Amino acid sequence: MGKFLTSRSEDYSQWYNELVVKAGLAEPSAVRGCMVIKPYGYAIWEKMQRQLDTMFKETGHVNAYFPLLIPKSFFSKEADHVEGFAKECAVVTHYRLKNDPSGKGLVVDPDAKLEEELIIRPTSETIIWNTYRNWIQSYRDLPILCNQWANVMRWEMRTRMFLRTAEFLWQEGHTAHATATEALSEADKMINVYSEFAEKWMSLPVIMGSKTESERFAGALETYTIEALMQDGKALQSGTSHFLGQNFAKAFDVTFTTKEGALDYVWATSWGVSTRLMGALIMAHSDDNGLVLPPKLAPLQVVIVPIYKSAEALSRIAEKVENIVNTLKSKGISVKFDDNDTQKPGWKFAEYELKGVPVRLAIGERDLENGTVEIARRDTLTKETRNIEGVIDYIPQLLEEIQTNIYTKASDFRNEMITKVDTYAEFKDLLETKKGFFLCHWDGTPETEALVKAETKATIRCIPFNMGKEEGKCMVTGKPSKQRVLFAKAY
Amino acid sequence: MGKFLTSRSEDYSQWYNELVVKAGLAEPSAVRGCMVIKPYGYAIWEKMQRQLDTMFKETGHVNAYFPLLIPKSFFSKEADHVEGFAKECAVVTHYRLKNDPSGKGLVVDPDAKLEEELIIRPTSETIIWNTYRNWIQSYRDLPILCNQWANVMRWEMRTRMFLRTAEFLWQEGHTAHATATEALSEADKMINVYSEFAEKWMSLPVIMGSKTESERFAGALETYTIEALMQDGKALQSGTSHFLGQNFAKAFDVTFTTKEGALDYVWATSWGVSTRLMGALIMAHSDDNGLVLPPKLAPLQVVIVPIYKSAEALSRIAEKVENIVNTLKSKGISVKFDDNDTQKPGWKFAEYELKGVPVRLAIGERDLENGTVEIARRDTLTKETRNIEGVIDYIPQLLEEIQTNIYTKASDFRNEMITKVDTYAEFKDLLETKKGFFLCHWDGTPETEALVKAETKATIRCIPFNMGKEEGKCMVTGKPSKQRVLFAKAY
Repeated sequence: MGKFLTSRSEDYSQWYNELVVKAGLAEPSAVRGCMVIKPYGYAIWEKMQRQLDTMFKETGHVNAYFPLLIPKSFFSKEADHVEGFAKECAVVTHYRLKNDPSGKGLVVDPDAKLEEELIIRPTSETIIWNTYRNWIQSYRDLPILCNQWANVMRWEMRTRMFLRTAEFLWQEGHTAHATATEALSEADKMINVYSEFAEKWMSLPVIMGSKTESERFAGALETYTIEALMQDGKALQSGTSHFLGQNFAKAFDVTFTTKEGALDYVWATSWGVSTRLMGALIMAHSDDNGLVLPPKLAPLQVVIVPIYKSAEALSRIAEKVENIVNTLKSKGISVKFDDNDTQKPGWKFAEYELKGVPVRLAIGERDLENGTVEIARRDTLTKETRNIEGVIDYIPQLLEEIQTNIYTKASDFRNEMITKVDTYAEFKDLLETKKGFFLCHWDGTPETEALVKAETKATIRCIPFNMGKEEGKCMVTGKPSKQRVLFAKAY
Repeated sequence: MGKFLTSRSEDYSQWYNELVVKAGLAEPSAVRGCMVIKPYGYAIWEKMQRQLDTMFKETGHVNAYFPLLIPKSFFSKEADHVEGFAKECAVVTHYRLKNDPSGKGLVVDPDAKLEEELIIRPTSETIIWNTYRNWIQSYRDLPILCNQWANVMRWEMRTRMFLRTAEFLWQEGHTAHATATEALSEADKMINVYSEFAEKWMSLPVIMGSKTESERFAGALETYTIEALMQDGKALQSGTSHFLGQNFAKAFDVTFTTKEGALDYVWATSWGVSTRLMGALIMAHSDDNGLVLPPKLAPLQVVIVPIYKSAEALSRIAEKVENIVNTLKSKGISVKFDDNDTQKPGWKFAEYELKGVPVRLAIGERDLENGTVEIARRDTLTKETRNIEGVIDYIPQLLEEIQTNIYTKASDFRNEMITKVDTYAEFKDLLETKKGFFLCHWDGTPETEALVKAETKATIRCIPFNMGKEEGKCMVTGKPSKQRVLFAKAY
């Protein structure tokens, strides 16, 4: 199947598009910019959801659900938010169709025009803060720690499956607090949850940091981000957490009585990750043969392919394998014994490689005689023959090793692709040749940031949290800088 | 708190509306007909989802996700479907807003009009069958057994929280089969899954049967339903499963090559349950003090309320209780020790009654001395004092007993409210006085069905599967009938 996929070196973008479709993850739909998430892709997303949801609950959050449609006027209430979100969006203007008088299908009924247009949520701060107004009177009602799993819609002009689609699935946390400190600490807590999820579950190393003012979420005073590096050397923003100050509380008049009896506006955060994580997962690890999935997110972790010439041999293999399947299942490992006889083993090998199944066992008649089994790893594409007796204990261990190895590989690559650069000329050169992340001094002005973006298409991905302070001079203007920031071209 | 809730006998409808809001399940939103599902309500829905999803997977189904928006023209393709669904729906006509030239907020940008309007899905048969066309070539591609968890929208004129809202959450299964027999058996399998879920998890007895032609889903050849009885004697349709024949395959040109090499249209089913189940759950079991929740769906199963005068007593109670909490948690039971000191025990008792927590333990200083604990059951509102030592083994047993008792109570009530009636006069009389379900002979014509509906507002809820054949004469026309059918007024 490898040969049916454009190689990464040939055309990375084409490779990605083909892989998404051929591995059965998603496909374009009849509606411009909207994708169908196919069962195999959705199974990975479900595993992500399940784990994230667990982590949200462990950090004290509860789920709720707010309406899909938002009155148009809500978007005008928070000045920055309207600029960021209310422009390219799906607008509901009517609530009825009728038969075309000419008899040809359906037309919009002009008598069913809404008094106020409704917007399909691009994000839910406005409707949620309009709701919170009734939930909050006193400091005793705080904090509110809600999350919602939902679909949202942004009318993107250029779309790519998972990375940027008009409709996408996500979670959005919206919390309300009595103090700025508490809200800031919540925003910080959640970007750390995202980072932990990316690293431990997706095997994806990320750099945490703050966004510059111009890259912040519309309406936020502070945006924290996790930035990952894809194999083509471009950055992918993979999750964000926002400190919204009192902006939304002021816009929607959400006040509370403090412990001291004063009246104050409520402090807010919001944070989200989306099906974009699927794009990150695919692009970070996969190869020219197909998907490479970290075992913790693989819908199928182990596949067993029998190699046989007769029905009798197949039944002997099936008998030998039954105990392995059951024991692994009892350990919570997903296993499939693929005895489908309409496909040859070679076809199956390629298919499971394409789908990124972490471990493949092959067992033939000679293995039966020798008491062996062939074990193939998807991440390294290596094979080994082992005694079948120890295999039940070996597999869980191997899955862990694969999880770690995928992380290490991505991490090594990412680290090699972080370059410290001190001159703008070198920056421009390496940005085109080496690509990746660049740690550079910046004078802290939006003007310099805009200039670099206009001239090179690189943006400041974040001001990293954990990379130390270091005084220096802005690579563009030579003005003083207190810390290197992270530049890259990004998705 | 009981006194703060209108009683059921006074005004059942008002009681329901108040209970939904006061128990923190849901509330109306700023968008007409759309509700906010609050954390406590959503936690119950999540438990329902989790169990249903498990049951769907156990019966071989996988999840996927299809677009929210459907091109208008899709609805014209299946003639019956368009009549049933495409009329009252949210229509997206534009994809951009712009600043009002007068400076007052946002207006729809007339330049951003869509070439073809998009409809927010009221149900997804059309977009899904348009997608399946590309998934199915041969009998080897069948069956397709997909489910989707999604939000849908129907522009209802009269809405009630959970029971009938413009936007609601649901799951919709859409399956594709090579033969009519297989599709029929799938539709039958899924209505049985719904029935099992209602009875075992919701403690809700249901009557399974077929819908009459006039009550079928728009586009279905056969609709199976589960019908439950609410405490006011009205029926609530709680889940449906449809045999769609080849209608959608024909409308969207979905053909396959059979084993024999012929070309045929694919056979379809669809099936769904929604947040309406929340309405059923609330209305079937709750009382004038608040919610009564079956333990299997209760977000909080056991609450422990300390009764104390001093901080020292509280800490002795806390110490005594710690082991109970931990042991119950380790058994998978959700427990809360409510040591909040801003509320009195009496207030807490009323609050947890309102919220339907199945078991409440109260422990005071005298209990400490005596080694006892007071155990209160929400379903029966009874209390008993027991030795604290045995409590860890008693609670799981009690939760099971409560689950069964809630079912038995609902079942006894429902059975009492099934009346066999042979004359139309008696039917009309008892429909107003006794209410409930009526088993009557019907001549099988839509004319008689329509007449009864027009004159009494009662409809045929279903032709029951498991209530035996019995010849008789139609209560209205006296014409021959082969089986009694189930009439009721319904939500």
